This record gives sequence, structure tokens and C-alpha cells, in this order.
Amino acid sequence: MSRLSEIGEKEAVRRIQELVASRGATSNIGPGDDAAAVDLGVMYLVATTDILGQATHILPGMTYWQVGWTLAAVNFSDVAAMGAKPIGLLVSMGLPRDFASESLDEMLDGILDCCDHVKAELLGGDTKETKEVTLAGTALGTVGKKEILLRRGASVGDLLAVTGSVGMAAAGYHSLRKGLGVKAVEKAILEPQPHVQEGMALSSSHVVTSCMDVSDGLASSVHTLGGMSGVSFTLDYDEIPVDDEVLEVAGASGVDANELALYFGGDYQLLFTLRPQGLERLRSLLGDGFTVIGKAGPRGADNVIVRGRDIIRLENRGYEHFR
Amino acid sequence: MSRLSEIGEKEAVRRIQELVASRGATSNIGPGDDAAAVDLGVMYLVATTDILGQATHILPGMTYWQVGWTLAAVNFSDVAAMGAKPIGLLVSMGLPRDFASESLDEMLDGILDCCDHVKAELLGGDTKETKEVTLAGTALGTVGKKEILLRRGASVGDLLAVTGSVGMAAAGYHSLRKGLGVKAVEKAILEPQPHVQEGMALSSSHVVTSCMDVSDGLASSVHTLGGMSGVSFTLDYDEIPVDDEVLEVAGASGVDANELALYFGGDYQLLFTLRPQGLERLRSLLGDGFTVIGKAGPRGADNVIVRGRDIIRLENRGYEHFR
Repeated sequence: MSRLSEIGEKEAVRRIQELVASRGATSNIGPGDDAAAVDLGVMYLVATTDILGQATHILPGMTYWQVGWTLAAVNFSDVAAMGAKPIGLLVSMGLPRDFASESLDEMLDGILDCCDHVKAELLGGDTKETKEVTLAGTALGTVGKKEILLRRGASVGDLLAVTGSVGMAAAGYHSLRKGLGVKAVEKAILEPQPHVQEGMALSSSHVVTSCMDVSDGLASSVHTLGGMSGVSFTLDYDEIPVDDEVLEVAGASGVDANELALYFGGDYQLLFTLRPQGLERLRSLLGDGFTVIGKAGPRGADNVIVRGRDIIRLENRGYEHFR
Repeated sequence: MSRLSEIGEKEAVRRIQELVASRGATSNIGPGDDAAAVDLGVMYLVATTDILGQATHILPGMTYWQVGWTLAAVNFSDVAAMGAKPIGLLVSMGLPRDFASESLDEMLDGILDCCDHVKAELLGGDTKETKEVTLAGTALGTVGKKEILLRRGASVGDLLAVTGSVGMAAAGYHSLRKGLGVKAVEKAILEPQPHVQEGMALSSSHVVTSCMDVSDGLASSVHTLGGMSGVSFTLDYDEIPVDDEVLEVAGASGVDANELALYFGGDYQLLFTLRPQGLERLRSLLGDGFTVIGKAGPRGADNVIVRGRDIIRLENRGYEHFR
């Protein structure tokens, strides 16, 4: 008999996907993507669920407003990764008996503020008594049938790009832990941003060929995107967007900056591929809101980072629970 | 400062609804109903979330298949109560590190079997590490804009009816607890049935004026339906459908049969009102699958049960968590 601590979270989620697939294929999309997509005839309904546990997600010092915001944000990020327009959120909250009702109100405010931020509604909620705070959200959205963004679809020659910068949440984690007080990165982990506007711009551009968020870390996401599309990626080290604050935290905390930027996770930027001839169109929609960091090559090759004369193999690891 | 143990689950859910309402009205329906309904133009998307905690929902001796089935069933029951056709389910599972992966597989089988049962799909899932098993489900469905069933809509003179019989889950609970071995009622609490076909028949009949499930108990549901519609109900004691096994458990366990039938909850039958002239039409659709148990009277009157010459006030209490 094996335990979840031995097989890990990804294997647990893979088992879910395998069991679902064994029940026969359908016209719907997912699981296996950031969200499932249900064919409603005129459009896809996009639906995704994410659960936050006290031990793994609720950081010491986090306000309940931030906890609520985060619950909504991580779910809307999956809607964003499909290029969908958010409709609403449902929340199921397991709460201890002695949980203060003021904290519940604060948490709901955070949830509602994030819903407002992405122009979605809180559609429903349920609460039950549990020993520790456990929060599950389900976000819904809609997207045109030709606009939907999936993890598969990249072709050899496509450009690889990412919105914003990476390593912010990782640096925030270490800044909080070591009391460095680097506010910009601490905010990144305490109040993650769902990139809904960017996702909708990517899908409306018709030049984006695949997309996902980088919540498990950039390296892990590059491997996933390549695996789903049947391509490999070559990244240009100097192009990977890393803010000065991340380097500052790396220096002050003694943690390797590459570790923060590539392997930690917790950022909710969108990683995507586009047809090279679509670059100009995407710049007109998103300006400098994204950076081209690499290119798709043939299946079977390693995912690598080129740094000057060095070619570094990109490891397939990132944040994982249970282990 | 107040604690959830003082304000109770219903008050917690009421706060959610109040906060949602304070953010401005929309064309959507809910919260406040069994499920939310989102206006997608050509139809309503129905969405609902329910969370099961180890302490409150996972009974000793329950198999993980039954836990999984129950998670899906209680969510699909809310879809059924809106008269909607189920599309699919998303599940978020908080699981302890030492949870056996075989138990996860068994639980997923239960979830999938219930999805198959209502012709819906498992659309997605997430798992995270928690101290105790905490399971959240979100069920989705669609229903025509003229077919949707809400908790409000009953008029004076409408008949009050319920599918199946009540008190089964309550009797099951006591049978399990006292080792009475009354299998039919034990199955009712271990493997609750979502009445999806009945819900769709009710909505397609165009004679049903309001509907909800009786999961919080018949009495509590009658009060809710009356309150939402602005009517009162008079029930006929002799018409309330109670199976012999429930009376058997009441006798053997020393628990009042009325307590089991009216106040315990855990049944997922549908309580609904219909226009009196629609009774024949509904019989043609559902046969003897439902029982007329009362009638709607004017707002302001008590909800009562008539038993021979006695008129008993129906108490407004049922199953509630936290307290």
C-alpha cells in the first residue's frame, strides 16, 4: 500500500486524470489543462478548482483578506490561462469551531475584492466545520470556441514568452521567512495577481498557440507545455525576466537566484507560445507586458537554457505538495 | 468577537449572501437558492458547491467509495433542485500525508460512478495536504430559462409535495449508531441519491412553482420554501411519506419518529409546490414518485401539521453545523 506522501501531489492528480480518461472520451476538454472546458455549443464553459490548505498555503502573518484574495486569485489564474472571461467563483470553506466570524468577514472581503478585480461574481459558498482552515474555490468563465488557449498546440519554430517577471513569489517567501522586508516581492506571494486581461488579450490575438500559468515554477511549466505540444524548448538565460528585488533577496538570503526564478513557483504569470509572425500583433495588444524567452524545437530534444557558451539542461522539478 | 460555534453555519452562509448582495444586484440568480444560476443568454448555467468534513460527514464504517459517491451526490442534488441537467463535477480534496493512494482510487471510483449515474462528467480535480480529509465538490448543470426551479414562486393554493419518503437518512444514522442493521435506511445515509431525473421532470412539467431539496430536514425546508415565496404551509400528518423501516428504527432506538421524519435531515428528496391543476400532468411524468403532503396558505400564518383534530406548529429547526 502506498501513501500520498510517497506518490506526491502530481501523481495523485495524474491518477484522477487517468481514471477520468478510462471512462471514455468526450467532446469536452480536460482534465490535464489548467481548467476543464465544456462545449456549450456557442462557446466553451471553462471551470477549474483549486484548494488551499492551512499548512501549505496560509503563510504566517498573512491577513485573512489576503487569504481570501489568494483563494480567488489562484482559481481565476486558471481561467486566465485558458484565455477565458471570468464569470464567477464558488467557495467551499472548512473552518474550525473557534474561527472568529470577523475573520470570515475579512476573508469574504478579500474574495469579493478579487472577484471585482476580474469583473466576476461570487456565485455561491458553503461552510463546514473542520479542524483546520481548508478553502476550495471553483472559478468559471467563458471563451469563444476559436479563442480557447490550451497547453497543447505549440509547433516547432514558435516563440516562447512569459508575462511579467518570474521569481517574485519565491523571493517573497524568503524575504518573509528571513525578515528582509522587501515589500514588492512579499506582496507578490501574499496577494497573487490573476492575469485575466492578459489571458483575454492572448486569446483574442489568434496568434498564441499554447498557454498555461507558471504557478508550479517556470521550469516545471516549460516541461509541461513542451510535453503536451510534443516540442522541446530552448530558453535564452539573459532574456528570462527577473526583477532586481529578486536578485536582492537571493543575495541577502544566500539562495541561488536561478532557484528562485526557475524552480520555486507561486508566480501566476502566463507562459505561452506564439507564431513568430504574430509578435507585432501581440506587442500592439500587450505592449511590453511580456517577454520572449525562447523558442520551440523538435520533440525529443532536452529543454535547455543557453547562457553565453553554456547549455544548461532545464530540470523538470517545481513546487509539489505531499512530498 | 464572536466564534462560528456561536453564530452557526446558517448565519455564516447568510453573511456570505449579505456581503454578495451588498456589492450590487445582477441578472444572475442566487446565492440564496440551492445553486446559483448564471444567465448565459440561451440558458442558465447552474453551479453549486458543497463541502464534506471528516468530523461531520464521513461516518465511521463508511467506505471511501461511499465517501466519493456522497460528495458527488450532495452536489448533484442541488443541481436537481433547480431542475437542471447535470454537466459535470469538479472536486478539491484536502488529504493527509498518510492517506493511502488505494483509498484515493476508491474515492475517485465512487465520484465517477455517481457522475455516470447522473450522466455527468468529472471535469477536474485538485488535491492538497491537510490534517484531515476535507472534500469540496462543485457541480454544474444547465436548464432552460423558462424551466428553472427556484425556492421562491409558490402561491396561495399551490400544493406542497415531496419525492420519495423522508426520515430514511435519520433512521440510517441511528441504525448504524446502535448496530440495528436495518440495511435499507443505512444505505440511504451511506449512499444518498441525487434526484436528477425527478428534478428534470419537475422543471419540464411547467406546473411546479418552487423547489428545493430537503437535506436540512423536511421542517427546515418547509420553512425556507414558505419564507422565500411569502406563503405559509399546512401539512397533513397522515400524508407525510415515512417508510416502515423508519418506524422500526424509531421503535428500536427509542427516538421519536417525528424527529426522524421532520427534523434530522440528510435525505435528498425534492420538496416542491405545484399548481393544483397540474397534478395530473405531474402524475403522468413521475407516477407515484411523489406525495402531496400539504397546501400553501397566506403569508404570516404559522407552518403547521394537521393530525386528526390536533394542529401542531412545525418548528423551524434542522441539521446545522458548528453549533
